[in-house]
Amino acid sequence: MVHQLQVIRHIQQLRAAIRQARAKDSTLRVGFVPTMGYLHEGHASLLRAARQQCDLVVLSIFVNPLQFGPNEDLSRYPRDEQRDLALAEAEKADIVFLPSVEEMYPTPTQTVVSVSGVTERLCGESRPGHFDGVATVVSKLFHMVQPDAAYFGQKDAQQVAVIQQMVQDLNIPVQIVPCPIVREADGLALSSRNVYLEPEQRRQALVLSSSLKLAESLVAESKGAIDVSELHKAIIEHIRQSPLAEIDYVEIVAYPTLQPVARLRDASSVLIALAVKFGKTRLIDNTLISF
Amino acid sequence: MVHQLQVIRHIQQLRAAIRQARAKDSTLRVGFVPTMGYLHEGHASLLRAARQQCDLVVLSIFVNPLQFGPNEDLSRYPRDEQRDLALAEAEKADIVFLPSVEEMYPTPTQTVVSVSGVTERLCGESRPGHFDGVATVVSKLFHMVQPDAAYFGQKDAQQVAVIQQMVQDLNIPVQIVPCPIVREADGLALSSRNVYLEPEQRRQALVLSSSLKLAESLVAESKGAIDVSELHKAIIEHIRQSPLAEIDYVEIVAYPTLQPVARLRDASSVLIALAVKFGKTRLIDNTLISF
Repeated sequence: MVHQLQVIRHIQQLRAAIRQARAKDSTLRVGFVPTMGYLHEGHASLLRAARQQCDLVVLSIFVNPLQFGPNEDLSRYPRDEQRDLALAEAEKADIVFLPSVEEMYPTPTQTVVSVSGVTERLCGESRPGHFDGVATVVSKLFHMVQPDAAYFGQKDAQQVAVIQQMVQDLNIPVQIVPCPIVREADGLALSSRNVYLEPEQRRQALVLSSSLKLAESLVAESKGAIDVSELHKAIIEHIRQSPLAEIDYVEIVAYPTLQPVARLRDASSVLIALAVKFGKTRLIDNTLISF
Repeated sequence: MVHQLQVIRHIQQLRAAIRQARAKDSTLRVGFVPTMGYLHEGHASLLRAARQQCDLVVLSIFVNPLQFGPNEDLSRYPRDEQRDLALAEAEKADIVFLPSVEEMYPTPTQTVVSVSGVTERLCGESRPGHFDGVATVVSKLFHMVQPDAAYFGQKDAQQVAVIQQMVQDLNIPVQIVPCPIVREADGLALSSRNVYLEPEQRRQALVLSSSLKLAESLVAESKGAIDVSELHKAIIEHIRQSPLAEIDYVEIVAYPTLQPVARLRDASSVLIALAVKFGKTRLIDNTLISF
């Protein structure tokens, strides 16, 4: 059978297509990759993981207005539907769901799914309301697709923590599969927002991954004994060597609770997470250190 | 086949029982009646509606701490598991789900489902946080049972509006079926809380239903032309004739938006809703008038 990608723009048709597939095979495993489009190799890796573990792979592409703040990049967020569909086809997705804003929000939503605790710090602090928007739209998409498993990139480590907390608290019957960060050869974490970078910003943006490498080696050399504030200071000093870099945050927190740690060894996993701005472009990166 | 009621206390077993039933019959229709127990004829009517329209009927009994305020009646809320199970058996429920608080909230929930707009007035105003607790627990139960239809009593008209709004906004794949208020022969709306009433309070509690009857006749006589404030005043004056009645609210709002109306005829459906206290016992009642 020749593989056939279905492009669906309406919720009702999406439900019907998935229902039909499930009716044909009662043990069908549905894998879901929710994205905002402008797909790159990071998204491709999620599709590959889903393809490997599931029978039916659903990709959604929706730039969700609810998770953008009033001064953020909603209107200029990059889009390229044709290229996205070609990538989905190449990665053998079965269904691409491409709803309009009107399809997702026919009336302004009065219902918000709000996760506390894990959203207090990092991007939750810099982008108030962002994770309410994420949790709400992911909850909506989960109800439309009803997947067995959903795939998220660990580059958005806090997003993964928020979704896992929501799924656990609300007993949503879906397995969350975090997938490793995919990087350019020189270390820059892949992001749809990298396209915004001017050449010199792009060069200096390496400071995110290099500061995480520095942090990893400082932790390894000290066998985890390095003082949290000393580690924090070393990362900040390293980033400051790049004159175009404007630090939004550098945080060292327990994972997945995202609560501050007094000593690294107090948590079994520690997340070192950064957000750094280059002009108007805000990039994030992180590394997870397990003891 | 002899009917066999399954009593289940754990989420995993609940999911397994429903999955098993669905595996046997791919067109199985699952009906769900979520309750706080201490079942009465109102609940029985929900079970009967579910039994009539569905193949598998699931009843849940859970007194949800999340929807009680700090000064409310959580600790004294009436419970009678044996009587509830007998009623469930008599109404031919298939599964009774009776989780403990620890089963529902193994850790304090960090995720809240919050519905705005329809929760601003009525019980939303008198009981802050109440509907967040309701929406959150109903969302959890929906994810556990994954019913095709869920049955709610129209006595809690605002609760029905909140659940309908949540289901619509979050695209939860369940049909909400509101069922008529069931009353004692003398007019008192059935409620698990009626058991709290002293004999004289019970006599005077008739003022709720009689004031709604009065309102209905004033609306009918005027063919919907009566002034909202005049109608409001007439209801309040009628209730005040009962010396033990302490009015919490009397509201005349559009349904299901629950927003104030300037004139009755401005909305196609108008809800007249009351909350009245007798000592510590707070009773609610309502009537829906359609034009």
